[in-house]
Amino acid sequence: MSAFEEAVRGIAEPDARIRAEVARRLDGKTKPRRSLGRLEDLACAVAAVQGTTRPDVRRRAVVVMAADHGVAAQGVSAYPQEVTAQMVLNFARGGAAICVLARHVGADVVVVDLGCRTPASHPAVLDRRIGPGTKDFTKGPAMSREEALRALEAGVGVADELAEKGIRLVGLGDMGIGNTSSASALAAAYLGLPPEEVTGRGTGVDEAGLRRKLEAVRAGLEANRPDPADPLGVLAALGGFEIAGLAGVAVGAAARRIPVVMDGFIATAAALAAARLAPATRGALLASHSSVEPGHRRLLEALGTRPLLDLEMRLGEGTGAALAMHLVEAAVRILDEMATFEQAGVSDSGA
Amino acid sequence: MSAFEEAVRGIAEPDARIRAEVARRLDGKTKPRRSLGRLEDLACAVAAVQGTTRPDVRRRAVVVMAADHGVAAQGVSAYPQEVTAQMVLNFARGGAAICVLARHVGADVVVVDLGCRTPASHPAVLDRRIGPGTKDFTKGPAMSREEALRALEAGVGVADELAEKGIRLVGLGDMGIGNTSSASALAAAYLGLPPEEVTGRGTGVDEAGLRRKLEAVRAGLEANRPDPADPLGVLAALGGFEIAGLAGVAVGAAARRIPVVMDGFIATAAALAAARLAPATRGALLASHSSVEPGHRRLLEALGTRPLLDLEMRLGEGTGAALAMHLVEAAVRILDEMATFEQAGVSDSGA
Repeated sequence: MSAFEEAVRGIAEPDARIRAEVARRLDGKTKPRRSLGRLEDLACAVAAVQGTTRPDVRRRAVVVMAADHGVAAQGVSAYPQEVTAQMVLNFARGGAAICVLARHVGADVVVVDLGCRTPASHPAVLDRRIGPGTKDFTKGPAMSREEALRALEAGVGVADELAEKGIRLVGLGDMGIGNTSSASALAAAYLGLPPEEVTGRGTGVDEAGLRRKLEAVRAGLEANRPDPADPLGVLAALGGFEIAGLAGVAVGAAARRIPVVMDGFIATAAALAAARLAPATRGALLASHSSVEPGHRRLLEALGTRPLLDLEMRLGEGTGAALAMHLVEAAVRILDEMATFEQAGVSDSGA
Repeated sequence: MSAFEEAVRGIAEPDARIRAEVARRLDGKTKPRRSLGRLEDLACAVAAVQGTTRPDVRRRAVVVMAADHGVAAQGVSAYPQEVTAQMVLNFARGGAAICVLARHVGADVVVVDLGCRTPASHPAVLDRRIGPGTKDFTKGPAMSREEALRALEAGVGVADELAEKGIRLVGLGDMGIGNTSSASALAAAYLGLPPEEVTGRGTGVDEAGLRRKLEAVRAGLEANRPDPADPLGVLAALGGFEIAGLAGVAVGAAARRIPVVMDGFIATAAALAAARLAPATRGALLASHSSVEPGHRRLLEALGTRPLLDLEMRLGEGTGAALAMHLVEAAVRILDEMATFEQAGVSDSGA
């Protein structure tokens, strides 16, 4: 059995008994019942995934996976392809937005090269390269099934390493010029939606660029005729190395009872792929923010999740996931640190 | 000239030149232009209020003002009136939700007694008492104009003290059994809205309680016939000591170029009172979250602000303001710490 299959079989459902126990404890705190709203839901959810009434998210990491995309040749991005590797170095050196926000929320940044065209060689970058970028999906599959599986396995491996290090909360981040086109194609294929409903401007293409993206997504669906009943086939045909890698991280983390904070459109497409490959992964997924990309909301709905933040962000890298980690920790600290009515000598009306 | 009048005259508009300069600096960072969305707006807004291209929010505080309300006698709350003073002690001892969240975001909690029925005597509570709670506004004015002015002055005084201590970001928090009724009455009076559009369940009253609240708000408007053109008269007739105090904090902070993070329904009603008394205060106001209270959205709209968070919270105390402070700091850190395209050697498409 492969590490991926093992992870898939190892995923437990969130523990409903623990969820209820945590909700009860929150009701005893000095506040009207449920008055902290979704922060209370978050505490319950994290406890249920971790399988403990004393959840712990002090050690956390955002995994940023990077790779290049053959579809970039179709002129679907506002940026040249070399930016993928340039940004990986920027991640490694601490200058990118995700580095700033991860420092701000006390999360490690784990940078993984799944297949930039030019290898990003830096001691702070994990080399899990599958190849020098995917093929152009408008002409045929972006990856072979075997490559997709290797990327999934690489993701499971990273999740395992983080679990061994004591990381108890994982965020998903992406980098890859052209990867919103890939995410749009995956969304269209998995959800059976017309490309125009799930294709947006990504990093900021103009009207002509948006038309090229739509054309590329249509061509990709046409050339590959993906079958939603074959989730690995869809992922191989239209995904990217970093997207498959992140799907692997989600599956691997879920198997380790580590809650997974999704980011924007690409990371959420990866999470959807994970949920199609291993439905039990869904229980471990937490939505962070709502991206400007039109397809993102559809993906979040399909996963039955609701974002915590709506800041009109569209950067990726795990930036929304990082910000949401602060809310997750807030929820856990409420559970840990707030006084009960009894402890504080406050009259409880039961409201 | 009173300290309040002096503060009102001392408020400068946010600096548009600085706002533009910060937006330009953000455009040079390694990300597509504007891809951090509202986080970028936040950095610009804070810089413009502070009047510097290098805004600093490392020292921050949530001011939690507490007082009792005569209208509580109308059975408008799910909790007995003694809970106000009990919760003040809970704030002072660090067990309340705001204490946990303020620790989490690195903010001080400044607890101020503006007039609990029973004085909350604790060394950590500032005594700025105007009296043992307001009168029942269903029978006549809650306060005299002179009392409202004293509460405003107390708020300005607290803001001045915080400014002297180097606090550069202030949150508004409230505690006062019955104070959602007061905030509903203020919203109805200032905005000319029917009471049913701005009256909700507060800490969680049942149907009968909600009917009593609505009746009380109607009776308050009937008994006082507040004139929106007389903002101090409206505040005195229907407000509370802590609400007037928080309005004073907003005015005082604005005069000191300190951005003011509003909280939920009550703190935002206080901010609206401040903006009616001193329209320039508006420039310094930042919305934090969207409360479950139906009137809150109307107040935020009237102030021309948009909340950052929608977590279905309805606790008050400054809990939403505290959470939003973390986003404010994130925005400032992006401005400070992110690499530019030039520094990072990343190709800039100008997208």
